[in-house]
Amino acid sequence: MESISVALGARSYPIHIGGRLLDSPHLFAPFLGGGHAAIVSNTVVAPLYLQRIKASIESAGARVAEIVVQDGESAKSSQTLEQVFDALLAARCGRDCLIVALGGGVVGDLAGFAAAVYQRGVAYVQVPTTLLAQVDSSVGGKTAINHARGKNMIGAFHQPRAVVADVETLDTLPDRELRAGMAEVIKHALALDSALVEWLEANMEKLLARDRKALMHAVRRCCELKAGVVAADEREAGVRALLNFGHTFGHAIETAMGYGEWLHGEAVAAGMVMASELSRACGLIDGAKVARVRSLVARAGLPVAGPAVAPRRLLELMALDKKSARGRVRFVVLEDIGRASLQDGVDDARVEKAVLAAAQ
Amino acid sequence: MESISVALGARSYPIHIGGRLLDSPHLFAPFLGGGHAAIVSNTVVAPLYLQRIKASIESAGARVAEIVVQDGESAKSSQTLEQVFDALLAARCGRDCLIVALGGGVVGDLAGFAAAVYQRGVAYVQVPTTLLAQVDSSVGGKTAINHARGKNMIGAFHQPRAVVADVETLDTLPDRELRAGMAEVIKHALALDSALVEWLEANMEKLLARDRKALMHAVRRCCELKAGVVAADEREAGVRALLNFGHTFGHAIETAMGYGEWLHGEAVAAGMVMASELSRACGLIDGAKVARVRSLVARAGLPVAGPAVAPRRLLELMALDKKSARGRVRFVVLEDIGRASLQDGVDDARVEKAVLAAAQ
Repeated sequence: MESISVALGARSYPIHIGGRLLDSPHLFAPFLGGGHAAIVSNTVVAPLYLQRIKASIESAGARVAEIVVQDGESAKSSQTLEQVFDALLAARCGRDCLIVALGGGVVGDLAGFAAAVYQRGVAYVQVPTTLLAQVDSSVGGKTAINHARGKNMIGAFHQPRAVVADVETLDTLPDRELRAGMAEVIKHALALDSALVEWLEANMEKLLARDRKALMHAVRRCCELKAGVVAADEREAGVRALLNFGHTFGHAIETAMGYGEWLHGEAVAAGMVMASELSRACGLIDGAKVARVRSLVARAGLPVAGPAVAPRRLLELMALDKKSARGRVRFVVLEDIGRASLQDGVDDARVEKAVLAAAQ
Repeated sequence: MESISVALGARSYPIHIGGRLLDSPHLFAPFLGGGHAAIVSNTVVAPLYLQRIKASIESAGARVAEIVVQDGESAKSSQTLEQVFDALLAARCGRDCLIVALGGGVVGDLAGFAAAVYQRGVAYVQVPTTLLAQVDSSVGGKTAINHARGKNMIGAFHQPRAVVADVETLDTLPDRELRAGMAEVIKHALALDSALVEWLEANMEKLLARDRKALMHAVRRCCELKAGVVAADEREAGVRALLNFGHTFGHAIETAMGYGEWLHGEAVAAGMVMASELSRACGLIDGAKVARVRSLVARAGLPVAGPAVAPRRLLELMALDKKSARGRVRFVVLEDIGRASLQDGVDDARVEKAVLAAAQ
């Protein structure tokens, strides 16, 4: 097991990465002072891992409630949130209970948001079981549910007490989800770390073949990058926004398609190609660099082009995206491979051109 | 105008108390950097004051959306919250918008919670128009909505950027609501300030007659007390819990009766008498002091006895109340007039006895 710290003063917490962590009661025991925990998972992950983690927490001396929600992005809804609240209240979970989010990004976002607002905030631990969640969404305390008008519109910054990333859980991940998670690995690299881009270019096949050592490296490196960014800018006032690379386009794709049609990582993949084309349209990078992005995305088995949605429709949806300042959309662009920056006031025409170029 | 500061480091904010504050654009201008505000109010308060505050904010250069919800405690629901989100999104309010809560405790709790979670948190200003909100609920950042299983079960700590308490708005407050607000004034005094108890005993008739000077004094003193408590214990880990005096019983009364039957302040009033009887049952204060509490509550025109609900039912509801630790209910009791403390592990039998004694 390796551990990385997210340095946030009194709210600092560890990210543990390794194997058989679900069976390690001591990783959960420090947060069970209230004697009561609730594991939130979904219908796919719960049958695989819930009883193991439940046994760990029970052996640490706490009662455990099980809350199993539907699978898929549609669980990030106010209805499912209500289901979680009902179950927490039925189990008489108090302010001192611990919520454990066992699953991928959807479960982590939903359970984390439930923890943020249940009785004005209770402690929670992230136990990510997908690559996407292990390299990205489980770290940093961003929690949210979706709204019909846009993704992650309702949420909170609420840091977990720990992240327990058991890489063995990736063994049961469907290929499509492994690839979707790879989109966020690529995102970290393109936005922040050119050395990681090169490593990915050399090791993509190993990763897709689930080579344990390669996966450990990717998870650890992404967590290190993310921990540094979160420590520097918890509330996304600056540098943290760079991790939205590909996401402004990606969210618009997801909203246009209805949540669940495209996986989040797939939409982000296409979004990263669009954002790279936009970077070229802004004169920041050349065509060779865009081709490098496109190639890496394609080698991960991810879509390089968005769905058949009119560029103007994507623009409208992006205008509603929460990253707009004074109504203008703020884009994350690449100044180079491994170096992202924020760009305000981009012409709509340029954005449309980028969307069309990405579809070529 | 007088101003009190709530000292919370970078999140410190002022409470302004005075007349004609709704017409003071400079009180709102500092928070309008995004150029966009949304005023949340209800069907009773909006016709009285919304246009005035809207004009102030517009004259400070911002666009203003109006969001008017139903009147009454039932507005603290997930449905009404959804209505607020829909309206914020329809008005294209971004992360940099300002939410203004114009109304009483219900509007403040609802709009404050909406601000806490809309796009993971936006700025808001409290403009309390009831005595209850001016002396208590608008200060300190506690926001919440109710759940069928209990009051304030879903919420957040989210501090406002300012509290603007225009005492002239109390002129339009119905007598019943004025009295309900008096319950929270009495609560501050009984829990924290024996001198304020004496002042209330000498000035209750003036307050009920809406003597402007007396009201200013009560609002200012309560805000001073509350500001001190919040600065010392923002998240209610200790001293702030003392301000829940009467509330554990009061919430149970409200839940038992269904929200809206009893006003919050009325339930708290009866709850304070029960909590005083419990303090006597615990051997902390004598009958003369209980009689003093009862007399002050009665002189404010508030109920000294709860509704016809079995003590056992109230106990069950209190066990669900969020102030329970390891499943036990924590009570706020009086060690003396003006000095509250927390009491764990109180026998159920003693609580039942106190409920019955309060009904005598």
